[in-house]
Amino acid sequence: MGTAVQRAKCSVFIATSLDGFISRLDGSIDWLDKANKDITPGEDCGFREFMSTVDVMVMGRNTFEQVRTLDPWLYGTTPIIVITSRPESFNTTEERDTVSVSGDSPEAIVERLTAQGKRHVYVDGGLTIQSFLAADLIDELIITTIPVLLGAGRPLFGGGACVRDIPLAHVATRAFDFGFVQSKYRVRREGEEDST
Amino acid sequence: MGTAVQRAKCSVFIATSLDGFISRLDGSIDWLDKANKDITPGEDCGFREFMSTVDVMVMGRNTFEQVRTLDPWLYGTTPIIVITSRPESFNTTEERDTVSVSGDSPEAIVERLTAQGKRHVYVDGGLTIQSFLAADLIDELIITTIPVLLGAGRPLFGGGACVRDIPLAHVATRAFDFGFVQSKYRVRREGEEDST
Repeated sequence: MGTAVQRAKCSVFIATSLDGFISRLDGSIDWLDKANKDITPGEDCGFREFMSTVDVMVMGRNTFEQVRTLDPWLYGTTPIIVITSRPESFNTTEERDTVSVSGDSPEAIVERLTAQGKRHVYVDGGLTIQSFLAADLIDELIITTIPVLLGAGRPLFGGGACVRDIPLAHVATRAFDFGFVQSKYRVRREGEEDST
Repeated sequence: MGTAVQRAKCSVFIATSLDGFISRLDGSIDWLDKANKDITPGEDCGFREFMSTVDVMVMGRNTFEQVRTLDPWLYGTTPIIVITSRPESFNTTEERDTVSVSGDSPEAIVERLTAQGKRHVYVDGGLTIQSFLAADLIDELIITTIPVLLGAGRPLFGGGACVRDIPLAHVATRAFDFGFVQSKYRVRREGEEDST
């Protein structure tokens, strides 16, 4: 029909402390593990539903080193691209089947995934999210706020993640009985109506 | 009755960008002024109701220099203590009637206000909030998240605001049609039940 192929949608789905940290300075998420113990059995705060819409994940090396320690594996057969300039060896069957590495830019990765027919990319990890935000490639943010202040750590949004304001449209918020608050935002692009 | 006088409750009521900034690096809140234009007429996100419970405000010099430019004056006859080591001159009748300065520590200020019979202290401004958090004097946080990412600015929670985790209990969250999300948290003290 002559219509340009629409770029794959890129989403963030992540938990932070109320002061905006995704891990401690040493990468530890003990505070999140502790909070997760309060979750109502069977509740996953929408993670499985979100994952069912995801075609491919992109994450940084630090995040991958963390998630590869998880047992059971959280991501099924969803392909994962680890952004790294270092070679990588894969430990498990799940990793060998689903994980690849790339040193490409966010723009190049998304362009390639779009050309491959991928429609929805899950972007994970602080530095990776920041680089995708800086490249104006993030379309949706689902942020779950954990009721704790850490005082220090690795921030979700680092200083200088964006060189200009990024206006958002609030889509929905839900609060869980165990104190988590999850908000979904859509990034507003230029030319959109100036209203939510 | 032999009961120790209960320390005055200290609350935070503040707006931040989704990335946790309360102003730009130069102190500007143009992004907040812009967002406020979208507010439903008559809506104040609970500010008047909150202020009706406040006996006294404590804020830093930076915040005071900002709020003193507001017209009309937002704080009625509520007394304001400006934390500063510099002498201060007051410009207007409202300021002369309600504003005093102090170079005391958060602990000393709260002790004095409690002795004066004050029951509820509104703590405002990033550095002042951080110093009260570090002194374990904050009891309640009401944070209104504005749907924008700024990328840089003065953070609500600075690095090192607390030297240990501060566990919170989520009290309530409401989302407004114009995209603001307001969450209320209570600081959980040691000895409390480990549940919300």
